[in-house]
Amino acid sequence: MPGATYHLAARVYYEDTDAAGVVYYANYLRFMERARTEWLSSLGFDLADVEREHGVVFAVHRVDIEYRLPARLGDRLDVTLALVELGRARMTALQEVRRDVQTLSHARVTIACLDRAHWRPARIPPAVHARMEAQL
Amino acid sequence: MPGATYHLAARVYYEDTDAAGVVYYANYLRFMERARTEWLSSLGFDLADVEREHGVVFAVHRVDIEYRLPARLGDRLDVTLALVELGRARMTALQEVRRDVQTLSHARVTIACLDRAHWRPARIPPAVHARMEAQL
Amino acid sequence: MPGATYHLAARVYYEDTDAAGVVYYANYLRFMERARTEWLSSLGFDLADVEREHGVVFAVHRVDIEYRLPARLGDRLDVTLALVELGRARMTALQEVRRDVQTLSHARVTIACLDRAHWRPARIPPAVHARMEAQL
Amino acid sequence: MPGATYHLAARVYYEDTDAAGVVYYANYLRFMERARTEWLSSLGFDLADVEREHGVVFAVHRVDIEYRLPARLGDRLDVTLALVELGRARMTALQEVRRDVQTLSHARVTIACLDRAHWRPARIPPAVHARMEAQL
Repeated sequence: MPGATYHLAARVYYEDTDAAGVVYYANYLRFMERARTEWLSSLGFDLADVEREHGVVFAVHRVDIEYRLPARLGDRLDVTLALVELGRARMTALQEVRRDVQTLSHARVTIACLDRAHWRPARIPPAVHARMEAQL
Repeated sequence: MPGATYHLAARVYYEDTDAAGVVYYANYLRFMERARTEWLSSLGFDLADVEREHGVVFAVHRVDIEYRLPARLGDRLDVTLALVELGRARMTALQEVRRDVQTLSHARVTIACLDRAHWRPARIPPAVHARMEAQL
Repeated sequence: MPGATYHLAARVYYEDTDAAGVVYYANYLRFMERARTEWLSSLGFDLADVEREHGVVFAVHRVDIEYRLPARLGDRLDVTLALVELGRARMTALQEVRRDVQTLSHARVTIACLDRAHWRPARIPPAVHARMEAQL
Repeated sequence: MPGATYHLAARVYYEDTDAAGVVYYANYLRFMERARTEWLSSLGFDLADVEREHGVVFAVHRVDIEYRLPARLGDRLDVTLALVELGRARMTALQEVRRDVQTLSHARVTIACLDRAHWRPARIPPAVHARMEAQL
């Protein structure tokens, strides 16, 4: 059974588009990162605070993204996140960028918790992990 | 006497920052452009619609921006716009990026209305101009 | 047997980095797109010309990218491209971002040739296809 | 009498453009920052090394940029830098983005040397200052 799906609204500005008249392919990853940050906020944790207090950083390890339909200037998008796997030092989320009922792009994103000093795997801080687990 | 000041909330994500730990200098211009687009929306006009219907584009002609204090990851910003000059084919706005009571950066931005096909000065569509004029 | 591997040099500037002190994850896709554009140039075709003359656009359909090690400010990178599949309207390339002998990230990128007006699959222009085929 | 003018070649990729079919206005600042970084390299200093060794950061304090003509996808640009003022903790450069004989945009950029820990004015490291002075 799927867990909670988090939604973030985003609007397409000129900065997001390219000369083909659509959102530039790398910029969907920016929308998805915004949703991850706001999702963490919604769980009660500020990303910058977590990283500073615990000396960790959440770094994307892998992205598998499919682009189905383009988003365009002025579009009002719905960026979603559903956590599907959670380990001690790693998590995987399914993320989508939608416009109305259409899925424009969808991705599977794996994020590693790393020790900021050495860039090596580190445990997700327990309080954060507990709140994430409740989202599965 | 100053006219209306428009406010847009923005949050600082990783995408906005750089390795100096602050918002990258060019990215304040992205925040300011978002405010201009939402300001036009607040006047009842969708930027993409205006440009398509009238064959014009609003292009920045000049920016004079001063950076006073840096914005950082996670900051919640207030991006402002106050129209100060309005001609037939050009307008000037004062824009600020603020955090709480502090002005982090402020700019004077001149925008030209251009014929999209030839990239030459064009009249601001009259209905848009009328609504803008009421903001002075 | 692998075909030709194209190499493009890239340097990491502040614009590419984020507050974690590394290249922002979406920006590796920018490096990879630069390599694809220059690869096409190396085959004798200017991307903008091809798109204008044939009414097509090369749009990324899918990216599966793994991030192994971070690139940092000032790094001199080697961005590679090796075409591995070529259809009538679609191609797949393996791309890497390397620093010295290390692979920092590697991706499998599928690009579709689309009719620019309707954003539907279109044949890769035959002259372009022929030159690409010679790279397999 | 003008001092030395530094030149950096840059090419316009999709990442630089927007849905108006031209380079997005904030991205000219990225081109200009690349030229400043490579100029410093040409003087014998790696930006990341200077900042790490001396605990300083070169932060843009002010930009006054005028956009005259747009750059477009595929354009090969010449980005220039001429140092015009040099203080103990601050410098000003004139920068242009050119295509062939045309100046597309030109800017006056003031950069402050800041103490990285407190983000307060700091002396430009003497060895760097000496090499910069020779460029005036």
